[in-house]
Amino acid sequence: MTTQTPLRGVVPPLCTPLTPTGEVDTDSLRRLVERLLDRGVHAVFPLGSTGEASHLSRASRQTVLETVARTVAGRVPVLAGVIETGTARVLDAARAAVDAGADALVVTAPLYAPTHPVEIAEHFRRVRAGAGLPVFAYDNPATVHTKLDRATVLDLAADGTLAGLKDSSGDEGSLRRLLVALRRRGLDSSFSVLTGSELAVDGALLAGAHGVVPGLGNVDPDGYLRLFRAAREGVWSAAAQEQDRLAALFALTDAGDPAAMGRGSSALGAFKAALHLLGVIDCPATAAPQVPLDASAVERVRTALVEGGLLAG
Amino acid sequence: MTTQTPLRGVVPPLCTPLTPTGEVDTDSLRRLVERLLDRGVHAVFPLGSTGEASHLSRASRQTVLETVARTVAGRVPVLAGVIETGTARVLDAARAAVDAGADALVVTAPLYAPTHPVEIAEHFRRVRAGAGLPVFAYDNPATVHTKLDRATVLDLAADGTLAGLKDSSGDEGSLRRLLVALRRRGLDSSFSVLTGSELAVDGALLAGAHGVVPGLGNVDPDGYLRLFRAAREGVWSAAAQEQDRLAALFALTDAGDPAAMGRGSSALGAFKAALHLLGVIDCPATAAPQVPLDASAVERVRTALVEGGLLAG
Amino acid sequence: MTTQTPLRGVVPPLCTPLTPTGEVDTDSLRRLVERLLDRGVHAVFPLGSTGEASHLSRASRQTVLETVARTVAGRVPVLAGVIETGTARVLDAARAAVDAGADALVVTAPLYAPTHPVEIAEHFRRVRAGAGLPVFAYDNPATVHTKLDRATVLDLAADGTLAGLKDSSGDEGSLRRLLVALRRRGLDSSFSVLTGSELAVDGALLAGAHGVVPGLGNVDPDGYLRLFRAAREGVWSAAAQEQDRLAALFALTDAGDPAAMGRGSSALGAFKAALHLLGVIDCPATAAPQVPLDASAVERVRTALVEGGLLAG
Amino acid sequence: MTTQTPLRGVVPPLCTPLTPTGEVDTDSLRRLVERLLDRGVHAVFPLGSTGEASHLSRASRQTVLETVARTVAGRVPVLAGVIETGTARVLDAARAAVDAGADALVVTAPLYAPTHPVEIAEHFRRVRAGAGLPVFAYDNPATVHTKLDRATVLDLAADGTLAGLKDSSGDEGSLRRLLVALRRRGLDSSFSVLTGSELAVDGALLAGAHGVVPGLGNVDPDGYLRLFRAAREGVWSAAAQEQDRLAALFALTDAGDPAAMGRGSSALGAFKAALHLLGVIDCPATAAPQVPLDASAVERVRTALVEGGLLAG
Repeated sequence: MTTQTPLRGVVPPLCTPLTPTGEVDTDSLRRLVERLLDRGVHAVFPLGSTGEASHLSRASRQTVLETVARTVAGRVPVLAGVIETGTARVLDAARAAVDAGADALVVTAPLYAPTHPVEIAEHFRRVRAGAGLPVFAYDNPATVHTKLDRATVLDLAADGTLAGLKDSSGDEGSLRRLLVALRRRGLDSSFSVLTGSELAVDGALLAGAHGVVPGLGNVDPDGYLRLFRAAREGVWSAAAQEQDRLAALFALTDAGDPAAMGRGSSALGAFKAALHLLGVIDCPATAAPQVPLDASAVERVRTALVEGGLLAG
Repeated sequence: MTTQTPLRGVVPPLCTPLTPTGEVDTDSLRRLVERLLDRGVHAVFPLGSTGEASHLSRASRQTVLETVARTVAGRVPVLAGVIETGTARVLDAARAAVDAGADALVVTAPLYAPTHPVEIAEHFRRVRAGAGLPVFAYDNPATVHTKLDRATVLDLAADGTLAGLKDSSGDEGSLRRLLVALRRRGLDSSFSVLTGSELAVDGALLAGAHGVVPGLGNVDPDGYLRLFRAAREGVWSAAAQEQDRLAALFALTDAGDPAAMGRGSSALGAFKAALHLLGVIDCPATAAPQVPLDASAVERVRTALVEGGLLAG
Repeated sequence: MTTQTPLRGVVPPLCTPLTPTGEVDTDSLRRLVERLLDRGVHAVFPLGSTGEASHLSRASRQTVLETVARTVAGRVPVLAGVIETGTARVLDAARAAVDAGADALVVTAPLYAPTHPVEIAEHFRRVRAGAGLPVFAYDNPATVHTKLDRATVLDLAADGTLAGLKDSSGDEGSLRRLLVALRRRGLDSSFSVLTGSELAVDGALLAGAHGVVPGLGNVDPDGYLRLFRAAREGVWSAAAQEQDRLAALFALTDAGDPAAMGRGSSALGAFKAALHLLGVIDCPATAAPQVPLDASAVERVRTALVEGGLLAG
Repeated sequence: MTTQTPLRGVVPPLCTPLTPTGEVDTDSLRRLVERLLDRGVHAVFPLGSTGEASHLSRASRQTVLETVARTVAGRVPVLAGVIETGTARVLDAARAAVDAGADALVVTAPLYAPTHPVEIAEHFRRVRAGAGLPVFAYDNPATVHTKLDRATVLDLAADGTLAGLKDSSGDEGSLRRLLVALRRRGLDSSFSVLTGSELAVDGALLAGAHGVVPGLGNVDPDGYLRLFRAAREGVWSAAAQEQDRLAALFALTDAGDPAAMGRGSSALGAFKAALHLLGVIDCPATAAPQVPLDASAVERVRTALVEGGLLAG
């Protein structure tokens, strides 16, 4: 299938369920995807940061993409995350994504070498020319260590290089200016802006964003879908109330001890512990070298789920 | 006067008009303040980043505070910005603010030495104990190089150390979690959260923030007041539309050439050029060592004002 | 061959010559390697940052490793750079390096996801266990965005996980403390510390470092070899004089316009332009998406080579 | 007295002894200064980062300067640290330094507002013009959040704006290029480069630096003086051996628990605890809001002093 233009709605960045020995647990992954499709998500996004893509081997990444594409079977678009250090490596990954049946790519700027806006634009143009799939730019300065500049994104939207943007920059001021500029140039009906700021979705939708990519949507897709629908209907107080509830639930990402593990390990471990407690996946393991949550951390996740109304107390 | 509890509304961080030789232009400052009070702002905030406080001598800072306090004469609260490197220096500045007649202080974490959340909490407690005025914490990691952590702010809200927070961190996710936590603990009726994210005010108010501290509010107070009122009345589409207009107007801050001056010089120079073009202040000079806007940059500011409907074409 | 214990000397991080269409130019690469071996370098390090590894496809990387290993043919150790985002990907690359005939790996901490010292230690232990080759840690916070902490490196040196460290952190104080600690624990005869601070090599060798990994060593291996020998013989004034000359020559890395390209593109483009001007490689192209040096920049490289005594004026 | 041209040698950044209630302990400060002069230091530098200047009130800073200037009484130059957020504030502090009898100023770039090299150059030019004292630039990106660029420093050295540089940037490559450029332009006999990288002093002196500003020199001036003399005499192995000993001793700065206090508090607390244990100052208190060292941390400082040969076991 092709992605609608522009993509709108709730697009969970899929967790990657693993077995205790670190292999991709394809049964659990299928269950996760089916659950999300049942609830009504508008697309799925495997191999993003939430999918632990940076920690997975080439074979595991391919297994994830193939499993997701087969499970989805055209019901919604599959946006394949590509986390690679440079253009040629992105093109390697893009070929694999095409083979697996992905519908679009979500691609960061070069990760490792110091770079420049001109080089970032060239990067996306080469990826678009070589990949054979629509390309979403993935702006996540906390991990990419570069902020995509607004002028570059506008240029790449205007010339058709990019189909959209996943904005996890947290720079809502710049995002607002981008949204206003896209509308002024008539690009908001062809270019999709998806926010990754999963605790400020009501504000982003009010500002004109087309959708959201919420990691917490793995755990509570209904919440984000209610939020999105309330916003679409203009019932902003209901959208805000739902966002408040999700913001409280997000406390589960702090389950891990920050002195003993990375904050990524805590957040991803918490999402997986929650999915395990909810019976969606068989094993809450995260990929090496991340530190697993201990029993008390899992208990904190359980408490958050109970308080959030997702699990009986 | 005392600050209402909690402070709500539009609180412009005042520009500091200067003469061509770099002295505080008290006549222009009075006109700026009177214009803002006429329009209906809810408080004023001299000596913030927008007021170029970090570039002003002690005597100039005192002149600013005294001029503002006398002009306001109790009509709204005067929140005095305190940008100092450490606790003892903040207390020096607090005494001067009390002498000048300020109603509250807006204080950053220590600026220069590497610090720690425990030390930041101690800092605010000592400031509160020694200053004799209500204290708002000023969270601006772009200039302070420390992010106030949510747990510290909550503690300092709960024990009455802080009267509020000016959040310019841009971390809307953390802000949302703070707002939810404050409400859950019943602190939102005593502790005021003012956003400094002046291009995402609609979202912040939807999330429960009490008000906004917009630099652009020096230039277009009516816009922010309309936005605040629309939000208070729950007409969110109108709030968003006003925010969109203001986001477009904000383009004037890019007037300066980024290769030739700091972005602060460009933004502050643009605010002052706009106030000069609007006839509010006599001279658009910024404080040394900032680079002044050249004629073509001023022309860009004029164009933005015309496009924004603030100046006849 | 196995690496000597500990590795000492001058270890150039090899440039990767490319054809005009971006393929690995294996003839030029062989000439580059032969020239360096002729001059007497102590090992070679393909696929580091200088080798543009982050910009090369999997096939290109494999071509580089195979070409280098075959050309070297056991005369010196081949240290294969591994720039990958996480543990499982490093292990993918390690297998390829073993297949190509590398003697050791040079591996960074995880690149993309937020991490923690405990996770970094686990990363290196898993790489060592799975790779089947000695592992050098590559500390380059400017590109990896994590600084390896001294305690972790000491632990991994003591338990045999790491064979050495390539330190490009620029933190000479921490490096000094590491060197002192290694000597106190008797580890300096088994663990090799190679500095990547190519303009402070005299000081690093005086401090006890075992060698240097100089990008500029592609262009002027004789300089670094003279510097190393002077240091080994304790003629420190001669070492310093040689370092001064090389520091002046290093100005060639500024050939590119910083407003028009990344500083990496400028430095790597300059190394390649120099190798091209010296007749070592056929084409000075850098990998996409880097901006190529223009004619005036190449002229600046030529001038630097002439002033540095490497090219007739 | 005037500063020699260029200043050479060991220039300790003075600790500021405090009473238990946080006042400047002028008796202890006099003893500290006398001890350093007795040992033979070449200048003293009150009110630097080591002097906790960012944490001291205006009155305390003035007491420090006056006490130091009177105690020194012209025997060596007194370089007054100026840690202020902007140009006008530096000029306020410069007048106070002149009044107190300082011989030169050590001044950072603007601290708070985003800035630009052109503005930094203007800042130093205005300070030089207005201060009436020689000016050393203080490059400390860890606290100032700006790196002075080499071209700016060279320009300001060439036109006489700056008398020297205190380089705590840790960027030894850039420092080397600066030293080479200064020599080529004949400026090394008028412009003094002092390294603040107190664990790589042998390398810096080998590279041509004129001296060192070591915080640890408060505790062990003899070590740094031996190191400086060995370097001056070209006995580099002795210089390195002394540096090694000092690097080991520097472990005392890690005495504090990093989870419970800022690293500045740990390092400054350790210097003061050491001076207290050595009988130089009466009270080891650091300025608020810093966390004091606890008893076990002080014990670690004592152990380091014993191991370093400064205290009987």
